[in-house]
Amino acid sequence: MSPRPLIVDCDPGQDDAVALLLAFAAREEFDILGITAVAGNVPLALTESNARRIRDLVGRPEVPVYAGCPRPMVRKPVTAERIHGATGLDGAGLPEPVHPVGQAHAVDFLVETLLAAPEPVTLATLGPLTNVALAIVKNPAILANLREVVTMGGAAGAGNVTASAEFNIFADPHAAHVVFEAGAPLIMIGLDVTHQAIATPPRLEAIRALGTAPAAAVCGMLDVYSAKTMAAYCHGAPLHDPCVIAYLLQPDLFAGREMRVDIDIGSGPCFGRTVCDWRGRSGKPANARVLESINADGFFALLTDHLARLPAGSA
Amino acid sequence: MSPRPLIVDCDPGQDDAVALLLAFAAREEFDILGITAVAGNVPLALTESNARRIRDLVGRPEVPVYAGCPRPMVRKPVTAERIHGATGLDGAGLPEPVHPVGQAHAVDFLVETLLAAPEPVTLATLGPLTNVALAIVKNPAILANLREVVTMGGAAGAGNVTASAEFNIFADPHAAHVVFEAGAPLIMIGLDVTHQAIATPPRLEAIRALGTAPAAAVCGMLDVYSAKTMAAYCHGAPLHDPCVIAYLLQPDLFAGREMRVDIDIGSGPCFGRTVCDWRGRSGKPANARVLESINADGFFALLTDHLARLPAGSA
Amino acid sequence: MSPRPLIVDCDPGQDDAVALLLAFAAREEFDILGITAVAGNVPLALTESNARRIRDLVGRPEVPVYAGCPRPMVRKPVTAERIHGATGLDGAGLPEPVHPVGQAHAVDFLVETLLAAPEPVTLATLGPLTNVALAIVKNPAILANLREVVTMGGAAGAGNVTASAEFNIFADPHAAHVVFEAGAPLIMIGLDVTHQAIATPPRLEAIRALGTAPAAAVCGMLDVYSAKTMAAYCHGAPLHDPCVIAYLLQPDLFAGREMRVDIDIGSGPCFGRTVCDWRGRSGKPANARVLESINADGFFALLTDHLARLPAGSA
Amino acid sequence: MSPRPLIVDCDPGQDDAVALLLAFAAREEFDILGITAVAGNVPLALTESNARRIRDLVGRPEVPVYAGCPRPMVRKPVTAERIHGATGLDGAGLPEPVHPVGQAHAVDFLVETLLAAPEPVTLATLGPLTNVALAIVKNPAILANLREVVTMGGAAGAGNVTASAEFNIFADPHAAHVVFEAGAPLIMIGLDVTHQAIATPPRLEAIRALGTAPAAAVCGMLDVYSAKTMAAYCHGAPLHDPCVIAYLLQPDLFAGREMRVDIDIGSGPCFGRTVCDWRGRSGKPANARVLESINADGFFALLTDHLARLPAGSA
Repeated sequence: MSPRPLIVDCDPGQDDAVALLLAFAAREEFDILGITAVAGNVPLALTESNARRIRDLVGRPEVPVYAGCPRPMVRKPVTAERIHGATGLDGAGLPEPVHPVGQAHAVDFLVETLLAAPEPVTLATLGPLTNVALAIVKNPAILANLREVVTMGGAAGAGNVTASAEFNIFADPHAAHVVFEAGAPLIMIGLDVTHQAIATPPRLEAIRALGTAPAAAVCGMLDVYSAKTMAAYCHGAPLHDPCVIAYLLQPDLFAGREMRVDIDIGSGPCFGRTVCDWRGRSGKPANARVLESINADGFFALLTDHLARLPAGSA
Repeated sequence: MSPRPLIVDCDPGQDDAVALLLAFAAREEFDILGITAVAGNVPLALTESNARRIRDLVGRPEVPVYAGCPRPMVRKPVTAERIHGATGLDGAGLPEPVHPVGQAHAVDFLVETLLAAPEPVTLATLGPLTNVALAIVKNPAILANLREVVTMGGAAGAGNVTASAEFNIFADPHAAHVVFEAGAPLIMIGLDVTHQAIATPPRLEAIRALGTAPAAAVCGMLDVYSAKTMAAYCHGAPLHDPCVIAYLLQPDLFAGREMRVDIDIGSGPCFGRTVCDWRGRSGKPANARVLESINADGFFALLTDHLARLPAGSA
Repeated sequence: MSPRPLIVDCDPGQDDAVALLLAFAAREEFDILGITAVAGNVPLALTESNARRIRDLVGRPEVPVYAGCPRPMVRKPVTAERIHGATGLDGAGLPEPVHPVGQAHAVDFLVETLLAAPEPVTLATLGPLTNVALAIVKNPAILANLREVVTMGGAAGAGNVTASAEFNIFADPHAAHVVFEAGAPLIMIGLDVTHQAIATPPRLEAIRALGTAPAAAVCGMLDVYSAKTMAAYCHGAPLHDPCVIAYLLQPDLFAGREMRVDIDIGSGPCFGRTVCDWRGRSGKPANARVLESINADGFFALLTDHLARLPAGSA
Repeated sequence: MSPRPLIVDCDPGQDDAVALLLAFAAREEFDILGITAVAGNVPLALTESNARRIRDLVGRPEVPVYAGCPRPMVRKPVTAERIHGATGLDGAGLPEPVHPVGQAHAVDFLVETLLAAPEPVTLATLGPLTNVALAIVKNPAILANLREVVTMGGAAGAGNVTASAEFNIFADPHAAHVVFEAGAPLIMIGLDVTHQAIATPPRLEAIRALGTAPAAAVCGMLDVYSAKTMAAYCHGAPLHDPCVIAYLLQPDLFAGREMRVDIDIGSGPCFGRTVCDWRGRSGKPANARVLESINADGFFALLTDHLARLPAGSA
């Protein structure tokens, strides 16, 4: 089977970085057409630079990285340095990137690539959905060429940045609304799943034991990230974004259901909430497959196994 | 210890009826000052009449029943015959009530009783909070004489009437907002708890085996109610309202946490949601103790044991 | 023609006070069943006391004054001392009231009076609609016995307390929503009209020339009120509330149209706005007659003429 | 003085067409860098085609026309065929366009032109603000090179498409929010002004008397447009969009004030309203100059005079 054409939209972020490493490691499975960066966990200048730092780490300069929107569609910008540190990659110990950012704007890359693609493209989104939503508003014809959008974002249960909202959706709820209403095949991976994918010490040790530069970077980042997430809201570092790539590689690690998901774009206490209507109360048709559980051991085995495939570099 | 003065505000409803029976059965524990009815599961004319039917069943005419508000504070009325049947007590097999409804309006009874009470009064609410909120708006001085408000309503997780909202809150979110903002000691018992209190066949059999008229009414009602709730949204009849009375009788059956709860009174998909901020994201002070789990076997033992204390009547 | 039975709900306030004087002066036209006070321009303790001060000024102890709700239905309280001064009657020079407040709560007086009235009653509202809305929620049957509700509130154009909202509606938008949705015959007199009813110096001189105690109180209040309104938002003292009584006395002083009026009870920049749909864009049926213009000279002639009928007292 | 560099963003629409003709006629005053079309009065395929029809009418193929966004940022699309007819240029009698649409997307043209411009550029917007808002979100750096944004949209008084909202803002309130919050020098020309610019029969006759093809097209369009607007909401054809161009040519025809304008992007009855806070109640700094009146005779003299400068063509 030929590799699946894939675009990864992201805002690295330590967990984005691990997701990118997992995607890079899956050379047989993915044809990564490009990586698009968006403002999110940290400002755009850092997210695009961080994406390139990861690209350098794995020695894949042929995969283009594009910078996208530096701000959300409608709301005021919000970032998450509290969780990710000032750089977004605190703990990775990676040097400044060597290879430059692509000349196109990420939104234009999305539109042009999707319009021109010979086969439907999979889109993995790891950050706020600003780039994707702008591409849809700019040219809705791209929707016809999306094989699947797998998005880390939202929560059927409690949020993390507010009682109701998860960060990626909260950071641009209007963009999320555009994407969830667009009609593309959509997989939502929210906190309900990612809070089951905790990088416990034994799981981290298995990665550290690989002894490679990428493994060292992963463990360095997750040590920092664990400390911050545990202080802030979680009992261990949840590997949010890698779940998206893992789902593409091995969907049977996950279980979920088709349902209607509405985004709350009002101004009340649920602003940015993904309203998951698994009882079908709204009477509206399903617009997403919402994943609800993960085989966490299987997920970490997949992650460790793939990280082992990356070039060892100089750890 | 002298019995605790108690007012029960309700909208019977089969599960309200079981809660009333449990309260009536606890003669040593409660001094029931009055029962106030509100529009909710069925219209007011039925809820007040149903409260009196239950009062007749246990032969307690000295406990006054008052009719309250026939409509919500702000929103359009909504009822739940889908779950409770046309009468609200379908399955009970009870005759028309004999003793009349009290002459005062429930709101006035609440205000006057609370203002005059020699000791703080406990308020158990089993329906939409319209009566209670109107009493607060009419005379906020009553708050000083509330020992505790224990309310069945809301959900930290999924709702039942919409994806976000539980029926009692959804039926009058503005009233809930008034009550939750009022500053009285507040215990919230939402679907997270009550969906753990399922009247399974063995539990129902234990009640039926009492062989009394009240036990027969309970089982008759719950047979009907189980069928409807199972068809609509739940895997068995959840005994929502009796949890409130059980909490007052034996609080150690329940576990929960203090937190901020905001009511969504906007017009989006979370209208009527109880936003339970257990992570403290809002920075606002706690305004409720939200119960999160119940010892279901202990609850049903308590219920069965108390029902056995009621006069047997002619089953 | 026998006098029209009238209840005046108010929050005095200097302009309320003038309205009350006008109503008291119209002994042949009105049978004032009672005056109900509500929190608004100043807190309830002051508005009910101020109503009694005016009653004392005209020597009409047989007209009962009742205290109502000390807070709005849902929103946080807001007052307008910036416009009315700390007492609400700054400038009136009136002593503490002699005759006591009625024992009933204003909401109960409204409900009981309307239910018992032998003929439909007119309701003039000069403040936030909290008392009226609570009466409706408590017992909607009162609507059948309302001849007409004439309300000072709202604006088709710009607001005064915000860009969108007029004070009386802004102070309790949910109550306004209840009243405007209730289906009673409703006359809305908003800022569009009342900003045409300016107490210019010549008009004030005509009143002052009456040489009576009530005239002196009116002019004393309006001197203070003019200064404050001119500083805050208006080019002269607009006699908002007296327009309501004037309309009842001489409706041909006013022009207006039937239309749909919706109240914005959301949380955006139009919170508390009366959305006046004179073009019929909403497709909803009319629910109010919105007055749009006034014969201001005729209005002041009516006012002066009636004030002259009051007992002169000791100015 | 060298001509002012100008971009016109539009959704023709008969009144857009007249505005374009006025802009084309002002060859000494404007250097039209490009015309960008957006979905609005009619769908995008028609608005971009109509812009080209007007360009052909005046023989100016060197002015590029670009197609932009076919849908609003967040809300569902809405159009106004009721007012403009199925084509948007009903009555113009113009043939299909000859010269093609530009290859770039309007949003990209805006971003690239503004980033590269040697001097600040004026932006005239005659339709929903989708293109402009997307350009801002995509690259906020463009704001530094905007000399002035003059926008037809909104209303301080009543709306036209709803009681609260004017069409251009209602059709994409979120885009309007982005533009009004962006901090660029902004002139708002709303219904308050444009309903004073009525194409009365004598004014139309003065144009018709020019005897040129553009004059004939203008009169043909306005005959149709007058009939529709008079049937729908107005007492004559208001020349909304030409006011924008007229303001740029002769600002002393207009009067207005600096103030805060907020866009209502909630879900209530004021959705899409431009909240014009001329009393400064919000305490927020001014973000727009809101025009409030126009010298209508001067405006029509300017329009007629400029139309006379266009090539006569074959009427």
